[in-house]
Amino acid sequence: MRRAQYLIAPMSHTPLDCFFRPRNIALVGATEKPGAVGRSILDNLTQTPFGGPVYPVNPKHETMRSLRCYPSVSAIRTGVDLAVIATPAQTVPGVITDCASAGVEAAVIISAGFRETGAAGRALEEQILREARRGRMRILGPNCLGLMVPHQRLNATFATSMARPGKVAFISQSGALCTAILDWSHRERMGFSAFVSVGSMADIGWGDLIRYLEDDPNTRSIAIYMESVGDARSFMSAARGVALSKPIIVLKPGRSEAAAKAAASHTGALTGSDDVLDAAFRRCGVVRVDTIAELFDLSEALDKQPRPKGPRLAIITNAGGPAVLATDALLAGGGQLAGLSPDTLARLDGTLPPHWSHANPVDILGDATSERFRKVVDIVASDPSTDGLLIALAPTGPTDPVEVAEALAPALRTIGKPVIASWMGGEQAGRGEAILNEAGIPTYSYPDSAARIFDLTWNYSAGIEALYQTPEKPAPETGASSRAESGSRVVEIRASGRLLLSELESKQLLP
Amino acid sequence: MRRAQYLIAPMSHTPLDCFFRPRNIALVGATEKPGAVGRSILDNLTQTPFGGPVYPVNPKHETMRSLRCYPSVSAIRTGVDLAVIATPAQTVPGVITDCASAGVEAAVIISAGFRETGAAGRALEEQILREARRGRMRILGPNCLGLMVPHQRLNATFATSMARPGKVAFISQSGALCTAILDWSHRERMGFSAFVSVGSMADIGWGDLIRYLEDDPNTRSIAIYMESVGDARSFMSAARGVALSKPIIVLKPGRSEAAAKAAASHTGALTGSDDVLDAAFRRCGVVRVDTIAELFDLSEALDKQPRPKGPRLAIITNAGGPAVLATDALLAGGGQLAGLSPDTLARLDGTLPPHWSHANPVDILGDATSERFRKVVDIVASDPSTDGLLIALAPTGPTDPVEVAEALAPALRTIGKPVIASWMGGEQAGRGEAILNEAGIPTYSYPDSAARIFDLTWNYSAGIEALYQTPEKPAPETGASSRAESGSRVVEIRASGRLLLSELESKQLLP
Repeated sequence: MRRAQYLIAPMSHTPLDCFFRPRNIALVGATEKPGAVGRSILDNLTQTPFGGPVYPVNPKHETMRSLRCYPSVSAIRTGVDLAVIATPAQTVPGVITDCASAGVEAAVIISAGFRETGAAGRALEEQILREARRGRMRILGPNCLGLMVPHQRLNATFATSMARPGKVAFISQSGALCTAILDWSHRERMGFSAFVSVGSMADIGWGDLIRYLEDDPNTRSIAIYMESVGDARSFMSAARGVALSKPIIVLKPGRSEAAAKAAASHTGALTGSDDVLDAAFRRCGVVRVDTIAELFDLSEALDKQPRPKGPRLAIITNAGGPAVLATDALLAGGGQLAGLSPDTLARLDGTLPPHWSHANPVDILGDATSERFRKVVDIVASDPSTDGLLIALAPTGPTDPVEVAEALAPALRTIGKPVIASWMGGEQAGRGEAILNEAGIPTYSYPDSAARIFDLTWNYSAGIEALYQTPEKPAPETGASSRAESGSRVVEIRASGRLLLSELESKQLLP
Repeated sequence: MRRAQYLIAPMSHTPLDCFFRPRNIALVGATEKPGAVGRSILDNLTQTPFGGPVYPVNPKHETMRSLRCYPSVSAIRTGVDLAVIATPAQTVPGVITDCASAGVEAAVIISAGFRETGAAGRALEEQILREARRGRMRILGPNCLGLMVPHQRLNATFATSMARPGKVAFISQSGALCTAILDWSHRERMGFSAFVSVGSMADIGWGDLIRYLEDDPNTRSIAIYMESVGDARSFMSAARGVALSKPIIVLKPGRSEAAAKAAASHTGALTGSDDVLDAAFRRCGVVRVDTIAELFDLSEALDKQPRPKGPRLAIITNAGGPAVLATDALLAGGGQLAGLSPDTLARLDGTLPPHWSHANPVDILGDATSERFRKVVDIVASDPSTDGLLIALAPTGPTDPVEVAEALAPALRTIGKPVIASWMGGEQAGRGEAILNEAGIPTYSYPDSAARIFDLTWNYSAGIEALYQTPEKPAPETGASSRAESGSRVVEIRASGRLLLSELESKQLLP
């Protein structure tokens, strides 16, 4: 059974287990109406069965697709693990009350129409939270796409496709970015351990999810699209522990405000809360990225490949120019060109035509065949002075992108070092890319982008290393003089209704 | 006739006309042998006929594909405009001697095996140059892919496809990058006015080509991949004049050396020739880009769209999150969010559901239909406070990427302001992108990348504006005190065998 390989052992029950491993699901607002959100969720829940029963809840129906339909959650009269709610906003408080009285512990509220619509919506949302707290329920959403747990075959969303199983947990505050990333992930054959749309984060936030995913054996890294940090303390304290063992990558807009302020002042000092956030991220080992491309590409690399143990990349290519560009990008981002050992150089001399580059980047010339690529990759990968491989192929007459991909794919699976690739060009290159993606090799349109991704993965590894090695600093003479004092200041600040520290406060609190 | 629309008037004969508008071509090394470079060039020359005769030159054949075959160029006994040479390196000096005595003015040497192979190859190359000078011939190459002039239907390369006609001249020192960019350009429906692989630049260099393209009516901008600046004085003096009227975009690796030096020293001052080059580029209006992605994306935007007249971008989207990211990227790169006029806001209020964003980015909500997109684009594009439009679409249930592209394409052709698009997602989004590309709208995978491209086009326009407006500065008290003195210094430096100025010299010479 496919699922067995991922479930290491039964876990103790945590509050979020009902979301990620529900034994059964009630779908409130289930419908057969084409185009309705409740219809899409019903399709998704039943088309990739998660292994437990689905209970459609809709007072207007008695059955729905051979499933018995219930007028309310409490009418199900069995312990319901998870309620997925897709009814109009004004009905949701009543649904939650019903769930709470039926002992449901977890609900995903898909419905929109709450705080984002103004005062009346905000009041509705508060009503929901009161009801949920009364029944000790946890809420994901509202105004979200739902969540997927591919290893459990759980798709409790209204997205149009199911994520592939993989090692990256993706959490997004934008539903639109969720669906876009899902679409791209299919093209790149990239998988996820969890795919969570958090919506307005009325209850469950970053901290809860990060802490839960720390213990999830299928999750090896966590990628986040964050619009607001929300409960900053909860995020930071969760991230600080988790990022040491599992990479946390955050894409958070908001630099522009800082940029504008920086332009206005000429002090060169920290100019706003975004810089404070940056510093806080760094201190807890969170990698902040700047673009959707980086979030996606870095996640893909972390899903598919081991992390580099050092900064030394070997570049193997049939094209000198693009390799120069990749080198430039590599060095600019903190990586290094691996120095090849005399033994490796001798073996390459024995394999390659005389005019090869005799150094890294290993330019194996424009007439490189798939056989030449294969031999060179074997030799260079076994050099212990190499921490990773970038293979960059340009479309030349003698070099067939598809043939090279086919020749390399089997060997690349077992190298034990990160391997990334850039198959430049159009349609033929695209077919080669698909073969590499299927074999778990991340591909990037441009070799210089690929080198930058190697740098990001290495910077993450190195950053974690540094955090482990940093000795505890003595408390500074000014500012917070003890952990207890810091704690009480944070409590004071939170009591004043704020969730974000000022620049000065942050500096005082960060030792 | 298609060509007529590009040929404004017969031009006076310049030395490079024989390359770009040859009346006939001799192909030395023509062959039918499959896989041979001479075969690929013969295929290309005959499959897209440029309008004049092709003379295959190969002493072993009398005819080739119904074409009369000649034993040598001099045996053709008609004025030959352009010789394309694809014979082994050691035969090339003899071929050039023959061409020179036959009065040929221009030769493309495709063959490799010259200076890149060591002393013997360098000697061969010098022999070729002596012969060429004796006969007042100009040489493109050696060791190059050849050149294409799509508006003339001229394909004198061994590439596997022909470039589409367009407005960007692309000049590359890497043949591999040529073929990769050619492949990408087909996918994006991007065209070129010229596509030139310069190879080793034994004779014809940047300066010659830039000066020639200045007067080419089909070329609106020039994109360059430069590995070595070569004759820096020639490049700079040509670029200084041309960049004011036609954008020159340069991708040149070499930052990494500077970065390494910068890391080693802590002065914060200019650290090497790369910074000097940067300064020199800026002073003559050349845009330097850092990645293949930027070179390609910016070229595409300049090929397809007018340049922005100001920094104010309007973002129209069905997805809040991605629009926030695009805004961040826009502001970080020097662009601004267009402030919409009260009239525009009122018209949008009359068209959109109440919860639209009521500001730029114009978030028209997740359930946006193609009709809603079309109306909003009409309204926003006609606001005079908008200098450009970015349309960012996310894959949501109600929004069909193909339908929206089809609805928008006709109107987008006639807006008269730059329009760029990002259709996020997978296969369906790709079909939408193809429709937009066909309509001349550049598309980018990510909306934040698209915003960055708008910034680059605007920065170019603004930079040119600034160069026009900068008054002549008085000569500084130290350093070069007059134009004549600068000139004589440059002559001295060149006489010493150098083509690159030191940092100090550059600073003294640049007023």
